[in-house]
Amino acid sequence: MKTYTVAELLEKNLVLQEVEVKGWVRTFRANRFIALNDGSTLNNIQCVVDFENLDESVLKRITTGAAVHIIGELTESQGKGQNVEIQVSKIDVLGDSDPETYPIQPKKHSFEFLRENAHLRTRTNTFSAVMRLRSSLSFAIHQYFNENGFYYMHTPIITGSDAEGAGEMFRVSALNAKNPPLTEDGEVNYKEDFFGKETNLTVSGQLEAETYAMSLGKVYTFGPTFRAENSNTSRHLAEFWMIEPEVAFMDLDGNMDLAEDFMKYVLKYVLEHNSDDLAFLEKRLLDEEKTKPQAERSEMSLIEKIKFVVDNNFKRVSYTEAIEILRNSKPNKKKKFKYIIEEWGADLQSEHERYLVEKHFKCPVILFDYPANIKAFYMRLNEDGKTVRAMDILFPGIGEMVGGSQREERLDVLKDKMAALDIDEQELWWYLDLRKYGTAVHSGFGLGFERLVMFATGMGNIRDVIPYPRTPQNADF
Amino acid sequence: MKTYTVAELLEKNLVLQEVEVKGWVRTFRANRFIALNDGSTLNNIQCVVDFENLDESVLKRITTGAAVHIIGELTESQGKGQNVEIQVSKIDVLGDSDPETYPIQPKKHSFEFLRENAHLRTRTNTFSAVMRLRSSLSFAIHQYFNENGFYYMHTPIITGSDAEGAGEMFRVSALNAKNPPLTEDGEVNYKEDFFGKETNLTVSGQLEAETYAMSLGKVYTFGPTFRAENSNTSRHLAEFWMIEPEVAFMDLDGNMDLAEDFMKYVLKYVLEHNSDDLAFLEKRLLDEEKTKPQAERSEMSLIEKIKFVVDNNFKRVSYTEAIEILRNSKPNKKKKFKYIIEEWGADLQSEHERYLVEKHFKCPVILFDYPANIKAFYMRLNEDGKTVRAMDILFPGIGEMVGGSQREERLDVLKDKMAALDIDEQELWWYLDLRKYGTAVHSGFGLGFERLVMFATGMGNIRDVIPYPRTPQNADF
Repeated sequence: MKTYTVAELLEKNLVLQEVEVKGWVRTFRANRFIALNDGSTLNNIQCVVDFENLDESVLKRITTGAAVHIIGELTESQGKGQNVEIQVSKIDVLGDSDPETYPIQPKKHSFEFLRENAHLRTRTNTFSAVMRLRSSLSFAIHQYFNENGFYYMHTPIITGSDAEGAGEMFRVSALNAKNPPLTEDGEVNYKEDFFGKETNLTVSGQLEAETYAMSLGKVYTFGPTFRAENSNTSRHLAEFWMIEPEVAFMDLDGNMDLAEDFMKYVLKYVLEHNSDDLAFLEKRLLDEEKTKPQAERSEMSLIEKIKFVVDNNFKRVSYTEAIEILRNSKPNKKKKFKYIIEEWGADLQSEHERYLVEKHFKCPVILFDYPANIKAFYMRLNEDGKTVRAMDILFPGIGEMVGGSQREERLDVLKDKMAALDIDEQELWWYLDLRKYGTAVHSGFGLGFERLVMFATGMGNIRDVIPYPRTPQNADF
Repeated sequence: MKTYTVAELLEKNLVLQEVEVKGWVRTFRANRFIALNDGSTLNNIQCVVDFENLDESVLKRITTGAAVHIIGELTESQGKGQNVEIQVSKIDVLGDSDPETYPIQPKKHSFEFLRENAHLRTRTNTFSAVMRLRSSLSFAIHQYFNENGFYYMHTPIITGSDAEGAGEMFRVSALNAKNPPLTEDGEVNYKEDFFGKETNLTVSGQLEAETYAMSLGKVYTFGPTFRAENSNTSRHLAEFWMIEPEVAFMDLDGNMDLAEDFMKYVLKYVLEHNSDDLAFLEKRLLDEEKTKPQAERSEMSLIEKIKFVVDNNFKRVSYTEAIEILRNSKPNKKKKFKYIIEEWGADLQSEHERYLVEKHFKCPVILFDYPANIKAFYMRLNEDGKTVRAMDILFPGIGEMVGGSQREERLDVLKDKMAALDIDEQELWWYLDLRKYGTAVHSGFGLGFERLVMFATGMGNIRDVIPYPRTPQNADF
């Protein structure tokens, strides 16, 4: 007799065969109907117990959360909601679950409560669906790049460079925390630390990815990155995963094409591979929105939103055009924006991005050619001398999803930029080498993976799309 | 006119078409033959320059490492070593490379020198082949698990738990390094740190992976892990990548089957997808071995070794049997081992593992059922009360490649184990919950990714199979 997963039992035509399955009891109804789940799919298989012939001591142990081993005949189901069910001939309780203390009851739990029980929350439909989608998106990302001639590259997590410039960093050290060795000047003597210098957790693998792009051509990273910023919001994590492709001989237009093609591919992948999970999450969102006033509800359902991105071109708009649109917009004139757009050069806030995407264009938007002084040092200066070849991709409901640029390939311009920003050339000698030896146009972007998972699952809090979120005051589990 | 990669030009039948290609000059011979590489393949495409009609100022700039843009007709080649070549009609130098200072000359460089120039080392055949193989292995890993119903899970990098027990940890902190806040007792007050407690870099994602296995069924991690151990050897890194599958309802036999099937799949994948890179690395090894005395040379070539693993069953041997074999072995009797095996209970050293694999069995070996007291607390105790359901997979030339076990699923036994080892139950309350609610047999293993890359590439130093190695006194780039 073969052991099957629930997914196999529901998919394969095994009716009238004797089958074996192991999983966890989701519910047990009328002393007769077990809804059994093993994680292989959102769906449960119904297992029908002949309670009159089952020892009562066993019957009592069939409770929500218990692990069971079931043998029985797979039959067509008479009941509603499923095509097949198992007529149980033998059931073993492998692991009990005390219904008095088991935290995951068959009822609605708040996400807050489930975060406190993050080790058990994938035992609910919502979180198992979210994490299956997260896994699918990850695989789709690797598959996309693999099919398109990119090499996966593991950039370092511990970095000795503080020039990445994307945000506050966590220090990594093996020194005595209380009494670190000091130099003669009374400063911490990092020469005695593990790496012989001060080290931090990386905020981006981009600069290292550039080194590989300039020899292997097309590369990408997909790894953890860190920010030691005290942002206690539903959109920030101290530890999150980022995808960063980098391509030699590609300009900003190519970069936009790549990002758009990539986003569509991975979203299409989950539409095709995770329909049950998406349908569940879509219904969850609809139920949630029923409690809101009409005006606050989404115009599109979850799946409609994803399809809309897959099926439509992203609108490409220069920063300068965007500023004009915003300046003349109703919320700007009526002073409804918190930050009123007065002139060219203003940094766009989330409210402006959302206006452009959700009200004005009503589709994903790629903004490009930003003012140089609000963007990073490595972005390529345009001929106008005041804008850089940067791009941000804005998504409905999420805001900035992707940030990228064509990189400054000219050694002299890059050095001037670094000097102006007080970035030490010696710190980045290896990065400058790329411009000294065989420099070429190249571009890339960064995608915050959790933002993508939020978009694809409709979850509103970034803490609910990563297994164990790290945020200020929280590194549990 | 279309821009092609070198791989496309060499593979596709484009002869007599006008083509465009961008890449870097590897060599320029006789003012006529450019060997051009763009990273898309190990192989170069030969570009034939009509130097008599080319401006001398351009000609001078065609040097090793320069980035060039070439247009020309693809023709069948008259010369040896290639089928096609480009008759160059137009060449632009995009980025110069001063031959006086460019570190990567067209000659043999020592690996030590290339480590110091790790940002440029993938411009050599050896390192581009290694990193392409690393990328292929990564993809094969994701594909294997995806095809087999596993979910990819990102376990946390920053951990608040010090009970993982696999080794020394790096501290992660945002406190002032010189003057950290102190408690009344004069200890560092981690309550004021970013996460409100002491945090470290993870040494393993296993415990968290178990939480997901116990709801989603089959999961795996593939992420960075860390050891703050001062091991300055060719086999240790402070930062390395690990793969950790974890499966519910699977016992140790299933775990061995999974590990063996998995290893064979990923190695078969690179045999099929990276034949050029493997052939190059095989030849490199053969050349290297020519300088060694006959006795020290490998019996098998690189590709033969990989095929041997793919084609043969791994030998499964209990620890107890292995001790008998070792005790009666020649090197033990003649006291050639540094550590003489005297009795049951001894921890096996690398020399013993290599003897078993390379001399005695001459194939990969899975050792299982180790003494409980030399293995981790979470491994399942056998009925004999003194061994645990642990397994190590030993590979020729590498030693331990995989370490895994069936996990202790019994709450009382696990608690006793933790108490004996002084592991705080409160620290791992969530881990114990897995045994309180729906516990079941489950197993998993960990594979050090760099060890696998070493095996598949034949590289002898672990620093040469990861882009930017982190080791004591070194966090460059």
